[in-house]
Amino acid sequence: MKLKIINGPNLNLLGTRETAIYGTTTFGSFFEMLQKKYPGVELSYYQSNIEGELIDCLQETGFSYDGIVLNAGAYTHTSVGIGDTVKAIDCPVVEVHISNTFSREDFRHKSYISAGAKGVIVGFGLESYQLAIESYLS
Amino acid sequence: MKLKIINGPNLNLLGTRETAIYGTTTFGSFFEMLQKKYPGVELSYYQSNIEGELIDCLQETGFSYDGIVLNAGAYTHTSVGIGDTVKAIDCPVVEVHISNTFSREDFRHKSYISAGAKGVIVGFGLESYQLAIESYLS
Amino acid sequence: MKLKIINGPNLNLLGTRETAIYGTTTFGSFFEMLQKKYPGVELSYYQSNIEGELIDCLQETGFSYDGIVLNAGAYTHTSVGIGDTVKAIDCPVVEVHISNTFSREDFRHKSYISAGAKGVIVGFGLESYQLAIESYLS
Amino acid sequence: MKLKIINGPNLNLLGTRETAIYGTTTFGSFFEMLQKKYPGVELSYYQSNIEGELIDCLQETGFSYDGIVLNAGAYTHTSVGIGDTVKAIDCPVVEVHISNTFSREDFRHKSYISAGAKGVIVGFGLESYQLAIESYLS
Amino acid sequence: MKLKIINGPNLNLLGTRETAIYGTTTFGSFFEMLQKKYPGVELSYYQSNIEGELIDCLQETGFSYDGIVLNAGAYTHTSVGIGDTVKAIDCPVVEVHISNTFSREDFRHKSYISAGAKGVIVGFGLESYQLAIESYLS
Amino acid sequence: MKLKIINGPNLNLLGTRETAIYGTTTFGSFFEMLQKKYPGVELSYYQSNIEGELIDCLQETGFSYDGIVLNAGAYTHTSVGIGDTVKAIDCPVVEVHISNTFSREDFRHKSYISAGAKGVIVGFGLESYQLAIESYLS
Amino acid sequence: MKLKIINGPNLNLLGTRETAIYGTTTFGSFFEMLQKKYPGVELSYYQSNIEGELIDCLQETGFSYDGIVLNAGAYTHTSVGIGDTVKAIDCPVVEVHISNTFSREDFRHKSYISAGAKGVIVGFGLESYQLAIESYLS
Amino acid sequence: MKLKIINGPNLNLLGTRETAIYGTTTFGSFFEMLQKKYPGVELSYYQSNIEGELIDCLQETGFSYDGIVLNAGAYTHTSVGIGDTVKAIDCPVVEVHISNTFSREDFRHKSYISAGAKGVIVGFGLESYQLAIESYLS
Amino acid sequence: MKLKIINGPNLNLLGTRETAIYGTTTFGSFFEMLQKKYPGVELSYYQSNIEGELIDCLQETGFSYDGIVLNAGAYTHTSVGIGDTVKAIDCPVVEVHISNTFSREDFRHKSYISAGAKGVIVGFGLESYQLAIESYLS
Amino acid sequence: MKLKIINGPNLNLLGTRETAIYGTTTFGSFFEMLQKKYPGVELSYYQSNIEGELIDCLQETGFSYDGIVLNAGAYTHTSVGIGDTVKAIDCPVVEVHISNTFSREDFRHKSYISAGAKGVIVGFGLESYQLAIESYLS
Amino acid sequence: MKLKIINGPNLNLLGTRETAIYGTTTFGSFFEMLQKKYPGVELSYYQSNIEGELIDCLQETGFSYDGIVLNAGAYTHTSVGIGDTVKAIDCPVVEVHISNTFSREDFRHKSYISAGAKGVIVGFGLESYQLAIESYLS
Amino acid sequence: MKLKIINGPNLNLLGTRETAIYGTTTFGSFFEMLQKKYPGVELSYYQSNIEGELIDCLQETGFSYDGIVLNAGAYTHTSVGIGDTVKAIDCPVVEVHISNTFSREDFRHKSYISAGAKGVIVGFGLESYQLAIESYLS
Repeated sequence: MKLKIINGPNLNLLGTRETAIYGTTTFGSFFEMLQKKYPGVELSYYQSNIEGELIDCLQETGFSYDGIVLNAGAYTHTSVGIGDTVKAIDCPVVEVHISNTFSREDFRHKSYISAGAKGVIVGFGLESYQLAIESYLS
Repeated sequence: MKLKIINGPNLNLLGTRETAIYGTTTFGSFFEMLQKKYPGVELSYYQSNIEGELIDCLQETGFSYDGIVLNAGAYTHTSVGIGDTVKAIDCPVVEVHISNTFSREDFRHKSYISAGAKGVIVGFGLESYQLAIESYLS
Repeated sequence: MKLKIINGPNLNLLGTRETAIYGTTTFGSFFEMLQKKYPGVELSYYQSNIEGELIDCLQETGFSYDGIVLNAGAYTHTSVGIGDTVKAIDCPVVEVHISNTFSREDFRHKSYISAGAKGVIVGFGLESYQLAIESYLS
Repeated sequence: MKLKIINGPNLNLLGTRETAIYGTTTFGSFFEMLQKKYPGVELSYYQSNIEGELIDCLQETGFSYDGIVLNAGAYTHTSVGIGDTVKAIDCPVVEVHISNTFSREDFRHKSYISAGAKGVIVGFGLESYQLAIESYLS
Repeated sequence: MKLKIINGPNLNLLGTRETAIYGTTTFGSFFEMLQKKYPGVELSYYQSNIEGELIDCLQETGFSYDGIVLNAGAYTHTSVGIGDTVKAIDCPVVEVHISNTFSREDFRHKSYISAGAKGVIVGFGLESYQLAIESYLS
Repeated sequence: MKLKIINGPNLNLLGTRETAIYGTTTFGSFFEMLQKKYPGVELSYYQSNIEGELIDCLQETGFSYDGIVLNAGAYTHTSVGIGDTVKAIDCPVVEVHISNTFSREDFRHKSYISAGAKGVIVGFGLESYQLAIESYLS
Repeated sequence: MKLKIINGPNLNLLGTRETAIYGTTTFGSFFEMLQKKYPGVELSYYQSNIEGELIDCLQETGFSYDGIVLNAGAYTHTSVGIGDTVKAIDCPVVEVHISNTFSREDFRHKSYISAGAKGVIVGFGLESYQLAIESYLS
Repeated sequence: MKLKIINGPNLNLLGTRETAIYGTTTFGSFFEMLQKKYPGVELSYYQSNIEGELIDCLQETGFSYDGIVLNAGAYTHTSVGIGDTVKAIDCPVVEVHISNTFSREDFRHKSYISAGAKGVIVGFGLESYQLAIESYLS
Repeated sequence: MKLKIINGPNLNLLGTRETAIYGTTTFGSFFEMLQKKYPGVELSYYQSNIEGELIDCLQETGFSYDGIVLNAGAYTHTSVGIGDTVKAIDCPVVEVHISNTFSREDFRHKSYISAGAKGVIVGFGLESYQLAIESYLS
Repeated sequence: MKLKIINGPNLNLLGTRETAIYGTTTFGSFFEMLQKKYPGVELSYYQSNIEGELIDCLQETGFSYDGIVLNAGAYTHTSVGIGDTVKAIDCPVVEVHISNTFSREDFRHKSYISAGAKGVIVGFGLESYQLAIESYLS
Repeated sequence: MKLKIINGPNLNLLGTRETAIYGTTTFGSFFEMLQKKYPGVELSYYQSNIEGELIDCLQETGFSYDGIVLNAGAYTHTSVGIGDTVKAIDCPVVEVHISNTFSREDFRHKSYISAGAKGVIVGFGLESYQLAIESYLS
Repeated sequence: MKLKIINGPNLNLLGTRETAIYGTTTFGSFFEMLQKKYPGVELSYYQSNIEGELIDCLQETGFSYDGIVLNAGAYTHTSVGIGDTVKAIDCPVVEVHISNTFSREDFRHKSYISAGAKGVIVGFGLESYQLAIESYLS
């Protein structure tokens, strides 16, 4: 099984900044932990702050992988383009969010990605990614 | 670990009606499967079509259990009361939905429960419940 | 032919209160008149002020009766749950209202039931129920 | 008893076009059936695609007939003028629709006619007209 | 003088939970204090988490009591049904709220009950109930 | 000076119907009075219930008359077309209304004509027409 | 006949500023012209930039004069208070505007005064005042 | 205990105008009655039709009195400024309304004052003021 | 190939009025030019200011022609009826507009016709019609 | 160079109240500091809680000064009148706010003044005034 | 004549994916066909999934080419930036869409580009590009 | 002191295009002037049309500089992502705009950046940048 985690804008700051909120785990070390926990899964990772590069990556991944775990960050709420790509590609996409977006500002309650996703997992911290991987395994 | 699954209106019809959409698995047999899969978890189950009885059950459960998996069905979108109870009780609540509510009618995109929930899992079919249980175990 | 009339909140007050508006006919005596007028129809009647009990009754009736005449009263305008049940059950539902809900407050112009109903009859007083029965006979 | 059926735009296409949806009954033959079924009712019929001609007809009919059965078609949702006429004339108007307008586009959920109508009957196919006639007889 | 206090969902938790916010007074002990303070008033009390049971209670009380003090809790903001009952019954209803609902979420600013109430008292803590009783005495 | 009064839908009913509200003056007799009062003005009159005929008349009048007094009735609130014609023609148009449209339903507060009109006169009964003529004389 | 003209904020600048738009006639000299034109009318005039002083003046005038001509300027669109006073006083108020408020910004299309006014005259320049006086004379 | 009652626009007309609705009690005589009823309270009174004078008075009172009873009248619904002052001053403010503002026009359902008030009392007629005073005594 | 151009309200004024904006080409001479340019196309033309006559014409044309080029003018933005006819007829309809409706007032951004059209061409001046004809030829 | 600082409602409380937020600098001492810092500028100051007095002051200042620094406080968000004056006067107005109004309540995001201002400076504390003065000097 | 076709996000997938909907023509082969059909036109082509790269390309092209054919894909509905560039550059831009965006989701009905475009062509499949080129030739 | 100016889309066109509006000063020469005027400040400059590159730059700058002057151009109104970065980084950001965005289209009145900014400076032309630098110096 081949899965890719794709992270959107500002998620590269995880674990080094705002550690009071997000803890001191960097996504890099968290990703290593995931790789160890799921040895049977071929896991890869991509991050970009650029909306169109996320579309590029989704297109490149989306016809050969078994699944994508997508945290589009702020683009979740504004990007019709990423939403279109999620619908256009073959492989299923699970949308994840670290924080509970529904308890934050109103503009974060709207997602252009959810309608085309296989499923949505919100608010479990970094564990959201792990649950998304679990969803591909059962 | 003591967890309760609470289902809201019309979820008692699962598996016996609209089987073309929802399959022929009843919630009863699915629940037995869950009990077998998680022998270390003390799992119980409650269903009601009555909003206030769901509030009663949340109150009774919410100060002694380790967690609640709540699918409030249609009340998700209209019940300020259930949302209030979720915030008032001590134990964490994971909100789940079987279908992808975000690809359905607009009035199903709004949840009064999400803001107070530990996390939200949407669209994985019956597997949404299983992922919710997983979220309490890791 | 087996039909059930289901009435929602406050419709139990008909004929005994606000008689200046609604007249002095109780729903009980009106129902007896209907039974006499349609001897070939097996007519039954249920009323509850509790949203979930109306859902219970719709579920119990909805897979064995030939038709339901539903006046959900105030729940018409707020209950996603009853609307869901109307769509989930097998037998057709005719939505009726005694008063002309479209000439009243704005929030009464919205019905969560209409979209799933076989048809809608509004504003003919108690005769709305009779026209609904006629609709099952022709 | 003297009743007039008034049909608005595009209803002249009934039965000859889109027969997969609306069947092959023309309004003409349906109207003949109604005349036979209700020999005691003096039934007449008018159709126009022009909003103002419908107003003309309502004005001419509205002070001498016992009732009007009005399907204003698309003008239902946009014509303040027809709504005004319905309120201005003496004889009661029953608003009918063939399809269930409430399960179609949002702009068809609004009617400028309902508030001034004696009653509203929606979604019973051509039978909606027959139920409207029944409402004048009981 | 015969008055009834009717409390809606989650108000049974008062005084035992969230004591940091609401204090440690249970509604039971507060109610006893009220009875002592107003010996000339025949005071009774009802609480339910079920919308329809609150409607039942309002109907049973509303034609024989001198007044009702109603805190419908979360149903205040969603229940057209309770609002209808308040308008349908004979005895005056004073709407009360413990917290200042106007300084909380937007959806708590709307009340379906206020328009039909004799008066509204908001934000005085448990004293809101006492002021409501006073309003019946002067 | 050559002026034309143009009346829209339902204004032909003036003075013969709803006399309790509008009085027993027909527009015909009122128009004769105006002709006598303003002997120096060449006054003519047109009425139609048909939106497009009002546009026809505005086009025919609008390049040779000195002014138009337009009461578009219900089309005021819905006709982008009449509003366009008012802007396209050469002669100034004064918009008048008999009743105070601002104290009626919300949908009567919007006019598609006002923005292109020379001026607007609302609520003076039939005198609104007279004031409009005065506005051309001073 | 005793009439008062009441002008709101910024109308004291008329004729001395923005003369390209409003001309060089000051309201003072225009008022003198009006007094000469209507010798049989006891005309007086008041202007203030202060909302509450306009309310004061309406109250003082509104129980002894035969009519008020009110141009509330910018307060037209924001003052519930002035609107209330217009409804509370005995003498009729004609609302006037110099410019065509309906062809300006959206927020100028709403008036809190119109609903309580005897009539509304908009867009005739200073002549709007004269037409308002005429409306009291006929 | 030192309390001040502050009344906003048009409340000076109480008891002398619209007596059919509001009765013939002037606020002056009502205020004398209050002074007699609460001899232990140092009661004073202020009224103005000017928004900014109400702000002035709130500022002058708000750092030395024990409480303010504020009926801001129409400014309730439009004044961000008065709302700001209520939040800025030290002494608690109880917002009162004589009529049930929630059963009147939509624009009266919004208050800029409530969020910062100690409590809100609506719809008890002049008794609203008395209940507000009571709220300071218990 | 048989095509019909159908023009709505005010388009009969083209070329004779507002020539500064629209030029001095009448639609008649433009139509002759089109006929010469496309000798192999049987081109005809219809214009009306009356909504219902446009519906009549669409119905008469719509089952025997190969295509319709429709500029419904102002009715584009208000006519549910014309939109319904476009969907009901057999032959494809290309919607055209001379000016760029998207750079004009907000109410011109909405079209009830576009959803049912084969395609939409906006803003190329009279050339919009020519491009529409081209679209049928390729 | 002659500049005036005009402050609106509640800004007279600066420095003496809510010092935890706003510090202990009164506007008086801050103003003296400004005068010292800009000896070449003739600086004056005005404050009022009354909307119309602010309009009066803007009118008096606005035709002879070189610039105005305006903090209209709460009137920023509600006063069409002040916005009109800013547009009507000759001298440029710089709008300033002490706090970041865009991170506060939604109703503070709207300004009726900005569109007519020379520029807007928000959120720099008292320094906002100083930057506004700088903007006149460069 | 020098024209450039600029395509936005996901349009690189044309012809290789979702061929049931879009056919098997790749944009590459379609572009070659266009080059052959218009030998007198110097045609070039650019595609990017990155919003800012589209802005870059528009800027580079927009001061030296004779025209641009722009299909901004999903950015059409969200990009104020591309809309600004279209307005800022010298050469005219024709906006095209392959599918009928007006019969799809609501958020696709809004375009930030149309207002600044020379014209808009929607819904003709790949032929939309050809019609756009034609528009530059006539 | 180390400050960076970051400019968003289309701001690279300044001074070479639309010179009638923006003048002939390029940002390059303006930047040199700023460097000379503030020799004690280490000023640098970055521009990109790509949203994500602006996020990249903000992240790289935002933990080591003393301040950022950000003109995000069109992204101001649509980029939740840039707004998030402004909140996430350590150094203060001053938002600037050259033109008065509040006197332009409605969609330019909303900024996703303001809430997280230190302050906002709008409408002073290129001087807006200079005032922003001043705000860091005082």
